[in-house]
Formats: sequence, C-alpha cells, structure tokens
Amino acid sequence: MDLKHIINLLQQNDDIIIFPHVNPDGDCLGSSIALAMALTNIGKKARVIVEENVPSAYEFLPGLECLEMYKEDKSNGQLAVAIDTGDRKRLGERARLFDRCKFTVNIDHHKTNTSFADYNFIDASKSSAGEIIFDILKSMNVKIDKSIAVCLYVAIATDTGGFRYSNTTADTHRTAAKLMEYGLNAGELSSRLFEVVSKSKVLLTAEVIKTLEIFSGGKIAFLEVNDKILESAGAVPGDCDGLVNIGRNIEGVEVAVLLKEIGNNEIKANMRSNKYADVASIASFFSGGGHARAAGCTIYSHMNKAKSMLLAKVREVVE
Amino acid sequence: MDLKHIINLLQQNDDIIIFPHVNPDGDCLGSSIALAMALTNIGKKARVIVEENVPSAYEFLPGLECLEMYKEDKSNGQLAVAIDTGDRKRLGERARLFDRCKFTVNIDHHKTNTSFADYNFIDASKSSAGEIIFDILKSMNVKIDKSIAVCLYVAIATDTGGFRYSNTTADTHRTAAKLMEYGLNAGELSSRLFEVVSKSKVLLTAEVIKTLEIFSGGKIAFLEVNDKILESAGAVPGDCDGLVNIGRNIEGVEVAVLLKEIGNNEIKANMRSNKYADVASIASFFSGGGHARAAGCTIYSHMNKAKSMLLAKVREVVE
Repeated sequence: MDLKHIINLLQQNDDIIIFPHVNPDGDCLGSSIALAMALTNIGKKARVIVEENVPSAYEFLPGLECLEMYKEDKSNGQLAVAIDTGDRKRLGERARLFDRCKFTVNIDHHKTNTSFADYNFIDASKSSAGEIIFDILKSMNVKIDKSIAVCLYVAIATDTGGFRYSNTTADTHRTAAKLMEYGLNAGELSSRLFEVVSKSKVLLTAEVIKTLEIFSGGKIAFLEVNDKILESAGAVPGDCDGLVNIGRNIEGVEVAVLLKEIGNNEIKANMRSNKYADVASIASFFSGGGHARAAGCTIYSHMNKAKSMLLAKVREVVE
Repeated sequence: MDLKHIINLLQQNDDIIIFPHVNPDGDCLGSSIALAMALTNIGKKARVIVEENVPSAYEFLPGLECLEMYKEDKSNGQLAVAIDTGDRKRLGERARLFDRCKFTVNIDHHKTNTSFADYNFIDASKSSAGEIIFDILKSMNVKIDKSIAVCLYVAIATDTGGFRYSNTTADTHRTAAKLMEYGLNAGELSSRLFEVVSKSKVLLTAEVIKTLEIFSGGKIAFLEVNDKILESAGAVPGDCDGLVNIGRNIEGVEVAVLLKEIGNNEIKANMRSNKYADVASIASFFSGGGHARAAGCTIYSHMNKAKSMLLAKVREVVE
C-alpha cells in the first residue's frame, strides 16, 4: 500500500481513533500522540485510545491529553489507525472497537506484521513507527511543533536505543536532525529516556551481579533472579527488564542468560547473544522462541537442574 | 580564522604532522586518523604522532598504521596540525616537535581553546573535532571512504555520548547521516564504544552499589570505594570512572558523590549534579574545582569525618 493512500484516508476522515499496542513503549506512544496532535491542529477529532496507564517513564511526554482510557461500549469512529502493532492481538481489548470503525489502517515497521487492517502500510526499513509518522506529517504538509517533535524524537530514540541499535540508518539520523531543529535538547531527553533509574533497580542490579557465573573461558554468562532477590531490593518483576545485558556486555561474552525463578518448578530463561550464537535454536529446544540474538524459554524444573540443562545446550552453540 | 585558510594550508603543504592531545580519546584519535587517511589518499605524506599507546577501547579503529610513536629528536615537518587540543600543554612532550614545524594549525571545538598556533580554527558550536574534520574533508572535496567514515563516526559518537549529550545538534545528526551512508553499522560500533565492560568493572559496580546511602529525602546519593572494594572486585582505580553516575541517575537524586579512600587520611570526592545544584561551589569550599554539574575535591581526613563534612555542605546546596 502506497503512503499516499494512507494520507488520503487521514485527510478525508475527521473522526480518527489511534491505537498504540498493548504494553505500550516509547515508539507507539510517541508516534500515536504526535499523529493525534498534528491531526487535532488541523481541526480533526483525533484521540489515542489506550487500555493501560502510560508507563511512568513516558509521563513527561507532551500531548498526553490526547489519550483516552478504553471503555467497553458500543461507540465507534470513522477511521481507526493502529500504530506499531504487529498483529491484531496486540490491540488487546480494543480490537473490538478497532473493528467497529468504518475504515481501518495499520501503520508499522515490523516485517512480521500480519496486515490485519483494511489498509496496511508496513515499512520494515524504518527503525521505528516514529520515522514513518514523521514522513506522513511531512507529506501531509501539516505543521510540526516542538511538542510533536519531542514525541517523534522519543519514538525514534526509544526504538533505536538512542541511535545505538543496528536498525539505525542514515535516514534515522536525517529525521533526528530535522526534529532537533524544533529546539529539542538531546541531553535532557536522553537523560529521561536512558539514564534515570529507580533506586530499587539499582539495588536489584547489584544483587543480580552477585549471582554472575562465567563459563567456557568467558564466553557464557549466567545471572539469576528470584523473589527473595526482588524483595531484598524492593524491586518488582518489571525491574528485571534488560538485566540480561549485564552479562551480554561483559568483554568476551557471547551468550548471556538471565534465569528467573517463577515458582519452585518453573524457570524462565532470557537469552542474548552478541555475534554468532543462535539463541533462538536453544530456546526452541526448550519449546521457547525468539530471534537469533534474543530469545527466551521456560523450563519446568528447579533452578539447579534448569541451569545445568540450559548450560549444556549453550555450550554446544558457543564452543 | 576562516576554514578556507586552514584548507589552503592543508592543500599547499605535503608533509603534514597531526597531533591528537595527550590522554587521547575517541574524538581526537578518530579525527586525527581520518584526516591523515584522507590526506594520504590524495598523495600527501601525513602522519599522526602520539606519545602514548592507543587505549584498548580504540584499537579497533581502521587506519592505525597512520600512527607513529613520538621520538625525541630534531626532526620536523612542514605543517603541524593540533586536533581537539584546548591548549599547548595538551600536546605533552610533542609540543617541541609542533613548534619546530614551519606552519602550525590548531583545529578544535573547545570554547576555552587558547589559540596557541599560527592558524587557529575554533568552532565551539560543534559537538566534536570529528564534525569539523568532516566539514574540512567535504570542503576539500577529497574522497571519504568507509574507514574514514568509521573514524569520524567514532569521534562524534564518543564526544556526544552516542548522540545523548546536550552538545548534540541537528548538524551532528546530519553529519552522522552522511557518515552512515558509507555502510557503517551503528549497532556494532555503539556496542564497541558504549556497551562492552570488563568483568571486574561489573563486579565493582555491584560492590559500590552496596555502599549506596540516600539523604535529604532522596535528593543526595553517596557512594564509596576503597582498596578493599577494588581488590575484592579485581578492579583497578581506572574502573572507578563513571561510577558516580550510578548515584546521579537514580530517580529524584540531585547531587551524587563518590568518595574514594586513597589512604587513611585522604578522601577524594567526585561530585555530579543533575539540574540546579552547583557542585563546583562545594568543591571549592574544600579547595577543589570543576563545573556546576561536575566537580571534585580532596579532603584530608578519615572516611566518616570527610563524609559528614561533605554531606553538610551538599545539604546546604540541595535543600
């Protein structure tokens, strides 16, 4: 589908509902809010409908007044726009509202997108939905202001890890350059997005590092977390996000594993590799899944047994 | 001084010696090597003369064959070019060789640059020397290849903390976009520059977090390190670089202090603030110095006494 068709739909409809995916991140929130603000600025009724609270990390975003909490009723809209949403399931409860709208549009950058809407624009060469929304606003010739620029910058910066992931392209930087011109402060935004952490996360980091074990001459790093560790740090399960990278970033490590003890007989393994090891193949051996460099699985066993089974498989791939 | 004059000098001279500053970082090394490679490619004799080994973090840079270790002799060159060097002292032992060259040039982005050369080009609006060298190569119309692009990308990424510091401008991103077009992989380069850490640094981080104390309702964070902690982590004093940011990045913290016990009666304090606290004023009270957001001092006392003296002063500034 040509971007022009999507733009026509946005131009021809006046009652537009925007859908970020469930478990919203900086890209879907920033992109959705930016689009809603730009459409509101040209006189349309544009709302972002969510079914969860905005994560505290994104509470600083301008334009949060565009957000509405989903209510189970029979309301509908003219045009539904799903943003950054790989498949219909990621619309959660709101899938019903999405389906009730007269036209449905799906704007995304995930190559696995299932094209679940009437009109689908998927560009997997883009780092983020934010880059696509920027192109749309530019093509529509609508005014971009500083608030919109902040939202799009946050969208792009989140999905590229602050221009550090391999999905960062020359175009990503070109878009960032244009957004910076609206008076953004890269230092302030980056500090909010990438630096500020809770005290409990810091304490959890220290506790998890204490469990570090290195195998295969430094190529394999194992870390552990359990309820006792979470409790001693005053942390919540969400604080475990990204902890596997402590192991992955150690010099010489190829595969890092974070083992989370869920109950007495259930261990969730989160795996990352750096250069060559296919952790998806390890995950799939244990009925899990993922990508070559990031995968996960659940092993129904106690910690020591799960660890030794997993280590044996990781060694096969690494050595 | 107009950039054109600098370019004329580079074009008119064939024996060019390039000088990064002492204690070289990614910006001065990347910029110097990029310039040397580009000048060599157009048939000039161009060398980068250093007096220290390249830090291991930058050993992956292409073009290291342009580097020559400084020898104390009577040799000279036609044109000496200091890069990223705020004052003559930062040329170290090589200042004598610099002075013996027929013409001297100074290319820098530090606003405090002392203009110590015959020809000085200082542009403090640039994030890095790398951005200036890119402009020079573009204006000279010399060919940029992937190796040169990698060096300039590393220069810019290092000095902007990966496009995250406040010195990052729209121009910085525009230059990064042009460099990315030479086939760079942002993921690989960023991982080398920003993610890989030694195992001992990871262990040290955990040990230092254990010393975390929070005061003034969360606005002040104190961390400690001493020889015993370094030893238990197998770490070296250099591994302490940046540890003060563990405190600074905690949600709600305004001032973070890292106290390093040097001997029984000597405590080095490394201070950072986030938004408003002038830590330079605290440092100067204890005969130290620095900037409003980053400063340091030495207190000749034992740990507990130094901590309580410093805490009293930090409270005055924060509360």
